[in-house]
Amino acid sequence: MPPMAALSCPAAASSPSLSSIASPSPSSDRAKAPTFSLAFGLRAKPAIPATTFWRPGGIAAPRSPIRCAVSIEKETPETERPETFLREADGGGNGAAAAAAAAAPSSVRARFERMIRDAQDRVCEAIEAADGGGKFKEDVWSRPGGGGGISRVLQDGAVWEKAGVNVSVVYGVMPPEAYRAAKGAASDHKPGPVPFFAAGISSVLHPKNPFAPTLHFNYRYFETDAPKDAPGAPRQWWFGGGTDLTPSYIFEEDVKHFHSVQKNACDKFDSSFYPRFKKWCDDYFYIKHRGERRGLGGIFFDDLNDYDQEMLLAFATECANSVIPAYIPIIEKRKDTPFTEEHKAWQQLRRGRYVEFNLVYDRGTTFGLKTGGRIESILVSLPLTARWEYDHKPEEGSEEWKLLDACINPKEWL
Amino acid sequence: MPPMAALSCPAAASSPSLSSIASPSPSSDRAKAPTFSLAFGLRAKPAIPATTFWRPGGIAAPRSPIRCAVSIEKETPETERPETFLREADGGGNGAAAAAAAAAPSSVRARFERMIRDAQDRVCEAIEAADGGGKFKEDVWSRPGGGGGISRVLQDGAVWEKAGVNVSVVYGVMPPEAYRAAKGAASDHKPGPVPFFAAGISSVLHPKNPFAPTLHFNYRYFETDAPKDAPGAPRQWWFGGGTDLTPSYIFEEDVKHFHSVQKNACDKFDSSFYPRFKKWCDDYFYIKHRGERRGLGGIFFDDLNDYDQEMLLAFATECANSVIPAYIPIIEKRKDTPFTEEHKAWQQLRRGRYVEFNLVYDRGTTFGLKTGGRIESILVSLPLTARWEYDHKPEEGSEEWKLLDACINPKEWL
Repeated sequence: MPPMAALSCPAAASSPSLSSIASPSPSSDRAKAPTFSLAFGLRAKPAIPATTFWRPGGIAAPRSPIRCAVSIEKETPETERPETFLREADGGGNGAAAAAAAAAPSSVRARFERMIRDAQDRVCEAIEAADGGGKFKEDVWSRPGGGGGISRVLQDGAVWEKAGVNVSVVYGVMPPEAYRAAKGAASDHKPGPVPFFAAGISSVLHPKNPFAPTLHFNYRYFETDAPKDAPGAPRQWWFGGGTDLTPSYIFEEDVKHFHSVQKNACDKFDSSFYPRFKKWCDDYFYIKHRGERRGLGGIFFDDLNDYDQEMLLAFATECANSVIPAYIPIIEKRKDTPFTEEHKAWQQLRRGRYVEFNLVYDRGTTFGLKTGGRIESILVSLPLTARWEYDHKPEEGSEEWKLLDACINPKEWL
Repeated sequence: MPPMAALSCPAAASSPSLSSIASPSPSSDRAKAPTFSLAFGLRAKPAIPATTFWRPGGIAAPRSPIRCAVSIEKETPETERPETFLREADGGGNGAAAAAAAAAPSSVRARFERMIRDAQDRVCEAIEAADGGGKFKEDVWSRPGGGGGISRVLQDGAVWEKAGVNVSVVYGVMPPEAYRAAKGAASDHKPGPVPFFAAGISSVLHPKNPFAPTLHFNYRYFETDAPKDAPGAPRQWWFGGGTDLTPSYIFEEDVKHFHSVQKNACDKFDSSFYPRFKKWCDDYFYIKHRGERRGLGGIFFDDLNDYDQEMLLAFATECANSVIPAYIPIIEKRKDTPFTEEHKAWQQLRRGRYVEFNLVYDRGTTFGLKTGGRIESILVSLPLTARWEYDHKPEEGSEEWKLLDACINPKEWL
């Protein structure tokens, strides 16, 4: 099995040493809001000091960004992968009953963890097989109160210069003000802190060949417990995620293949999903200061809970299962294409844009950096190398210009 | 004369297309606050919508971050450098009187502009001479209502892979609420929008040789007009700036030389300056998520106005004049030092840290990106190339480790 690695978007989820706070957030900061699994939608103004995280939208205040307080413990390195990162109450632990539960998980938490861990194994196997040389290095970590993660990185392979595939399962606590705001109730009753659960898989795959595209995918699940001292208060849950392609050169057949796999996965569930999540993806991966998207999109969704929970679990599973068929055939076709120094330099400039998006806008990354997460895991999403030339402008009509044009003006590929 | 180029920290100042807004700022965001010349200290909550900028500290609320509203027009490319970017009322314009005023400027605005333009010329000449091959490319721009800038970039020279030296002179408007808050008066009288003036020089110089250090310097001056309809209301002004050194390898004699030139410049004015501004520099260039400074420091100060204005103008001039003697001798000594691929890879990793600081924390950069500034000017501060390896740890006691240690634990070099 592949050794240890890192993460990217739910990096945030897997990031330790959070403290907490919440304060009102100006809407101009929305682009920087780290959302992902730990996100929840509120209009709270808790007064607890410390670190922050944000989310746009959610049940109580759709598309309206808010800061909330979370508290997550520091992680510990582990020498072995556990069967599950769940707490005993969720079907985790080390006993025979836990082993049986891990083999046939029943809760959504347990089944989501099983799904992302299976997806991590299968994606890493497929990457190693296609690479034909590189092997993943694995880092396992846990938290004292439950939860943990598995980070895997393949560096300087034959095909990929850097590939990270990470899973994390995080337990934390949000302040009662946040939960009350989420419920939308102006109750005088004050519940205690509200426990939450967040799990996700996150991956960024940067190949060496400038004609072979970078892939990013990320699927995540978030749940709050009902507060113990607020009987009848509802449990909340959300799904989020997406898969997107970032080439340096456009091969239309590749982009069409990639998008059609995404559309097929979506269409099995709801015909509105692909058009809606395709646009959401174009909107999310927007490098505002450049007026460009990071790449050629795919699908992206967040805070989904207005569908049947089982349906959304099956949808997230289908999306995760679509990563290999969407990506590996493109890599097989492009990994050995001959290229020049100019092709490589253009790829490096586009990698610079990748760095700009991830450090300036990506919610998981900016959240992780602010909250003292495991930096190596968070920043494994950055390419091995990148380049910034002053005022570089591709010649109109060139292949480089065509890519840039498609990043500036998102296209319908299907 | 050198052709056109770009900028970095007062990039913000030179960045066009700002709109405005102001809203209260949580102190946890302080590290990201773009301050530089446009900064002013207030506790205002103006309600005007649009873009924002921040500042920590200042006269009314020292060290307390605030957002304020500014409004700056979009720039126009120019084919020639004007004698001055000042408006006629400040001694600018094109007439004979303006030419005479430009030759012997009297206001602090005019003298500061003269100083930074002279410094730009001299630094660019010294860089070209030491490079022995590369030439600066120049871009001149102006704003319809007055103000403009000169950006100069030398790319792929013999010694420097990327060197940007920029000046900008910006006129803008801040909302009356901000001005009233700055005065600290709870007056019921409502003045109109308050005009401001900001000028600065900003430069980042990245050499090729891994034993030759990167240099950054930036000096800026900010002024508000008295509001026309608030007789007796005071005019405000501040100075800011600094010069800092970012090597990949420590040559103690180089670092001592660099710091001693900074100290000498400071000591001519106030013996408290060097220790105070040296610490301020170590604190400012802190990559919080790494627990490391970007480099080995120098001096940094902001919002200085509690000294005689003439003294501070002379001090900023002395600092700008110290750039060449502080830096060029080090470059002459190190530019041809033989190096291995390993040395280059370590330099590239440190360049990655430079990118992280500038994109995540630097106030001028983050402000410029948020407000739609001239991106190529703002991001000329980024190195030509950078590198991110997963979990790279230099061997204890190695030369790489010594550099990292000095970035984690700032030292007294003198």
